[in-house]
Amino acid sequence: MIDKNFSFSVLKEDGLARVGKISTQRGEIDTPTFMTVGTQGTIKAAFIDDVIATGAQVILSNTYHLMIRPGVERISRIGGLHQFMNCPLPILTDSGGFQIMSLSKMVKIDFEQGAIFNSHIDGKKFILSPEESIRIQKKLNSDIVMVLDECPKLTNDKKIIHNSLKLSYSWARRSKNEFGNNPKKALFGIIQGGLYKDLRLESLEGLKKIDFDGYAIGGLAVGETQKQMFEILSNIVPKMPYKKPRYLMGVGTPSDILGAVKNGVDMFDCVIPTRSGRTGLAFTWEGRLNLRNAKYQKDDTPMCSYSNVRSINSYSKSYINHLINSNEILASMLITLNNIVFYQDLMKKIRTAIKNNAFDVFYNKYIDLI
Amino acid sequence: MIDKNFSFSVLKEDGLARVGKISTQRGEIDTPTFMTVGTQGTIKAAFIDDVIATGAQVILSNTYHLMIRPGVERISRIGGLHQFMNCPLPILTDSGGFQIMSLSKMVKIDFEQGAIFNSHIDGKKFILSPEESIRIQKKLNSDIVMVLDECPKLTNDKKIIHNSLKLSYSWARRSKNEFGNNPKKALFGIIQGGLYKDLRLESLEGLKKIDFDGYAIGGLAVGETQKQMFEILSNIVPKMPYKKPRYLMGVGTPSDILGAVKNGVDMFDCVIPTRSGRTGLAFTWEGRLNLRNAKYQKDDTPMCSYSNVRSINSYSKSYINHLINSNEILASMLITLNNIVFYQDLMKKIRTAIKNNAFDVFYNKYIDLI
Repeated sequence: MIDKNFSFSVLKEDGLARVGKISTQRGEIDTPTFMTVGTQGTIKAAFIDDVIATGAQVILSNTYHLMIRPGVERISRIGGLHQFMNCPLPILTDSGGFQIMSLSKMVKIDFEQGAIFNSHIDGKKFILSPEESIRIQKKLNSDIVMVLDECPKLTNDKKIIHNSLKLSYSWARRSKNEFGNNPKKALFGIIQGGLYKDLRLESLEGLKKIDFDGYAIGGLAVGETQKQMFEILSNIVPKMPYKKPRYLMGVGTPSDILGAVKNGVDMFDCVIPTRSGRTGLAFTWEGRLNLRNAKYQKDDTPMCSYSNVRSINSYSKSYINHLINSNEILASMLITLNNIVFYQDLMKKIRTAIKNNAFDVFYNKYIDLI
Repeated sequence: MIDKNFSFSVLKEDGLARVGKISTQRGEIDTPTFMTVGTQGTIKAAFIDDVIATGAQVILSNTYHLMIRPGVERISRIGGLHQFMNCPLPILTDSGGFQIMSLSKMVKIDFEQGAIFNSHIDGKKFILSPEESIRIQKKLNSDIVMVLDECPKLTNDKKIIHNSLKLSYSWARRSKNEFGNNPKKALFGIIQGGLYKDLRLESLEGLKKIDFDGYAIGGLAVGETQKQMFEILSNIVPKMPYKKPRYLMGVGTPSDILGAVKNGVDMFDCVIPTRSGRTGLAFTWEGRLNLRNAKYQKDDTPMCSYSNVRSINSYSKSYINHLINSNEILASMLITLNNIVFYQDLMKKIRTAIKNNAFDVFYNKYIDLI
């Protein structure tokens, strides 16, 4: 760890796409960046050393899951989440808001008290206020902390979305108050507003008044089409503060990322590379391969041709197809690592393309392929 | 690969315990050695590079499983099992005999034709003759090939065991004929005879006449007590050819290994370290730890204190307990690797103790602890 405050600067632009650098006390993060998801304090089926060897500079973990199991006290006792999971990289934690809505047996949202819910594991009752979410994330010792917000489901009822915005705005302010003055870490606000451009703008304007270290876009990739998502992004991202990191939460496929970078987004996270690793789906520069497919029984070429992280360029598709069919854990280990390698390689190539004023060429080459 | 014939020499003795060296075209193997089991062409939940980093010099794989799935042709097409599973180490393959008896839907044993059985995966009918087992192991390109034998279940009916010996003797001779002259590889005979010392001796004498590159003891660790096993070993092992490797199949716990080495055994294999890795049981020099136990929630000390292979000395018991409770694959990955590290460390310490004429001291210190 170095004695460094959180900071961000844009280094290069190509259209709206931009290359930047986030500095944290645990290291620098080149943007656009992709954060591999370690929901329960582990990136599923991967050693953290291997994740780092792929070039990853930051990971994400989920407050909701960790507060329920193993509980925050057990993690803070050993010094925080970095020590607990043996991860030297900076960690961003979400606030728990999204999982409370999507996973828990929700009891209710109380404007003052917070979210009242029962754990999806054992039914235990929790009350998560904006202040408590921040306190938990501080105990986890997260480098980038997210405000607690409400994530309404995709709906055409504008009034529901609008009412939710007021709640999220109030909670964002309370989150900021609880976070206080903490220059070594960052607190990000979250723009909501569904698919309504005016509500998205209203949300952004409110958050800007509170003043955050970075701004996230929440409530996308929740069932809308990619076209709808890109439309919202093209409208709201250019209006987000230029000098602060812009983070699109829970996104996405490689083409989602290409389209979002084109609109000026700097940060991403998604379970796709790791979850796909456990279902036999490999991301490659030739497109996605479903290695369960019987045709790979006859294919002795390597799954990955270019990365020697953990020798993944030395395992044939036929072998990995055999591992999948035999329910061998090594299948998940190899494909997960392949996919993390691919996503990090994608982000690196995106940054290089922007630096070379060639992002559009890169975008057009790959938008329909990967 | 080096142009070297298979050979073995005893380098040091301490009582009946002995340190030796097996030379193969793929590298040397210090004995006593433990072969980690890679049943389906993968050591479950472990990268082969990590297995090698633990000091492993040879692994074992199972002909029965591989002939059924993915089939031997798919493995031989890419050059053999080493290429298929990306393993540069020497590989010993068993003959399939043990799994045919224990796993398959057995149809019958035919003295001439071989074992006739249905796959436990899809019911497909197979006929495995002694000759076919050797041909398959040649196609897998195994460095150490085992004869096909019959492995009768533990029984008090001496006649059953005796009849089985005649069959196994005939099959051993046929296996040797099929193996032919093959100085780069080794063919091992397998002593059967249940818990009958006279039958064990009869089996050994028959095999010695055929003349093998090494001799294995089969049909132990199948339900008898450790005391019964040690009695058989103390009787038969000293009568086994001094200048050939002695291999106790499917054994065992650390204390089983200590007792067998004391009687002069050189080679072991067992699924215990890897299987335990997937059930939460960690082998350590302080004894076995069931990391599922709730008491480890409060234990921030590392599971393994001495090995930095894949940083396993940096993960706390509390963290691994959390991973187990959360059904995270990383739990299996970390504990499996810990156990492979422990077994390799055990064998290294055994060899050192023998070299220092201190095996009895070592044996007495650990026989009741690990």
